[in-house]
Amino acid sequence: MSKAVINLNGTLVSPERAHVSVYDRSFLYGDSLYEVLRTYEGRLFAMEDHLDRLFHSAQLAHFSVQQSRDHLRQELERTVEEFRRREATEAYCRIVVSRGHGRIGFGLNCIDSGTFYVIYVEPLRVPTQQEFERGYRLQVSSRLRNDPQALDPAMKSGNYLNSLLAYLEATEQGFDDALLCRDGFVTEGTTFNIGYIKKQTVVTPPLGVGILEGITRRRTIELALEMGLKVREVEFPPVRLLEADEVFLTSTLREVFPVTQVDDVKIGRGGAGPITRKLAEGFRTWIQTKS
Amino acid sequence: MSKAVINLNGTLVSPERAHVSVYDRSFLYGDSLYEVLRTYEGRLFAMEDHLDRLFHSAQLAHFSVQQSRDHLRQELERTVEEFRRREATEAYCRIVVSRGHGRIGFGLNCIDSGTFYVIYVEPLRVPTQQEFERGYRLQVSSRLRNDPQALDPAMKSGNYLNSLLAYLEATEQGFDDALLCRDGFVTEGTTFNIGYIKKQTVVTPPLGVGILEGITRRRTIELALEMGLKVREVEFPPVRLLEADEVFLTSTLREVFPVTQVDDVKIGRGGAGPITRKLAEGFRTWIQTKS
Repeated sequence: MSKAVINLNGTLVSPERAHVSVYDRSFLYGDSLYEVLRTYEGRLFAMEDHLDRLFHSAQLAHFSVQQSRDHLRQELERTVEEFRRREATEAYCRIVVSRGHGRIGFGLNCIDSGTFYVIYVEPLRVPTQQEFERGYRLQVSSRLRNDPQALDPAMKSGNYLNSLLAYLEATEQGFDDALLCRDGFVTEGTTFNIGYIKKQTVVTPPLGVGILEGITRRRTIELALEMGLKVREVEFPPVRLLEADEVFLTSTLREVFPVTQVDDVKIGRGGAGPITRKLAEGFRTWIQTKS
Repeated sequence: MSKAVINLNGTLVSPERAHVSVYDRSFLYGDSLYEVLRTYEGRLFAMEDHLDRLFHSAQLAHFSVQQSRDHLRQELERTVEEFRRREATEAYCRIVVSRGHGRIGFGLNCIDSGTFYVIYVEPLRVPTQQEFERGYRLQVSSRLRNDPQALDPAMKSGNYLNSLLAYLEATEQGFDDALLCRDGFVTEGTTFNIGYIKKQTVVTPPLGVGILEGITRRRTIELALEMGLKVREVEFPPVRLLEADEVFLTSTLREVFPVTQVDDVKIGRGGAGPITRKLAEGFRTWIQTKS
């Protein structure tokens, strides 16, 4: 934590001095939006995609972000630059935009401040090669994913208890993480999208099932098509994962990453599968051409 | 806000100095529990019921509250006493217990602190007699209540966007507040329980439909029975409200309060109904015998 640089609504501070009011609506209600980015070669990756999604989340939350897109982009870059002056490592970067602070109450008239953002830049921790080879053991959670008609998972908000509790329940039972379903179909993991491979076809839940549109998910679909694989975005029950040749997850921090066990069942031969490996390599190669 | 007294995990501070870390899990994830209490004659009302519910919420959230019940009770009382030394008014009292702060990440190993509480004590604002006579105009929200299998509404947590967005959507359209449904049945309001009266029978959704067990709800059911009314806790669609003789809500801050319009339909003769009035009076009389 001590190596982090925090941008508190435009002011760079050390993590020890980074505080928000107890009247902040993200503290009171989780009334905030967020994005997680990372750097490659010191530069923030897919910045515009993340900003697109932040403003899309804002629409879903009736949330009028008072800072301009340009301002947020500049502040994200400035915070990373300050971090890079101190640290040679790649950076993890989180931005939280709270609806603001004022007095207790739901109404917008209770907000004295404008929307208030916090940017966290820290040393990046990503899976090691050894962790890649081992892959994740996932539990299919008995906790369902949020109903899109109650709180749309496409909105990346500070209401994270649904996924967080699924994570705690899975890890208490020895799993690495959890996968959530709804209406009998697989939706997504707690912080990642999911897909499987069966007979040279990549299958992943469609956006309509109620998931976040992962930026890595989207690129992985393109990569699979470029590699001559078939891709199907269709709903499927969790049992399909158990029967799959390979299972993988996608996320900004883990890129394309093997899932080697689901519940008590080993997937394929139990290690990182050949197509997952190719997709992961393809993703990294693509990154190099981009950055 | 300036008249408030804040208890920051055991230290009394002014609201201007009441801050939490940006690494607090309630700020990051809404990973917190809360209760709202009020005073009557300067004393916190139904304290034990609220503490019961706080610890029940904690169970549902796999949340090990490190402060003892006795400690929280004493700190609640101490904060109210400090407020009363300054202000002669009744007090609003909110307690938020966050899972703590540390570094970003879901695991409990990311938490450096213990569970961290904030108590807010402020001048109480409750509806005036005029507001009582006018009653609330409620919108039946098209946003569904959280699915109990995703995030149990019986858990009073810092994940409040589901209700908060329903509130914003309803008030944007000129209503006072919103009512949420699930599976075609009425569940609860954004910060209150709901009931209706038809032919001397009080009807209110059962706990099993996925609602918070309101302390005022429970006492109102007892009161209705004592008054010789029939009480049915059964699921019902929103249309039942439109056909009702009277509709009312219950909450700690509003006690028993009339609902005089649902969507575009006036309820009964459009003002506070006679049985709602009797229940509200009965509740206040009961309070006086208790406090």
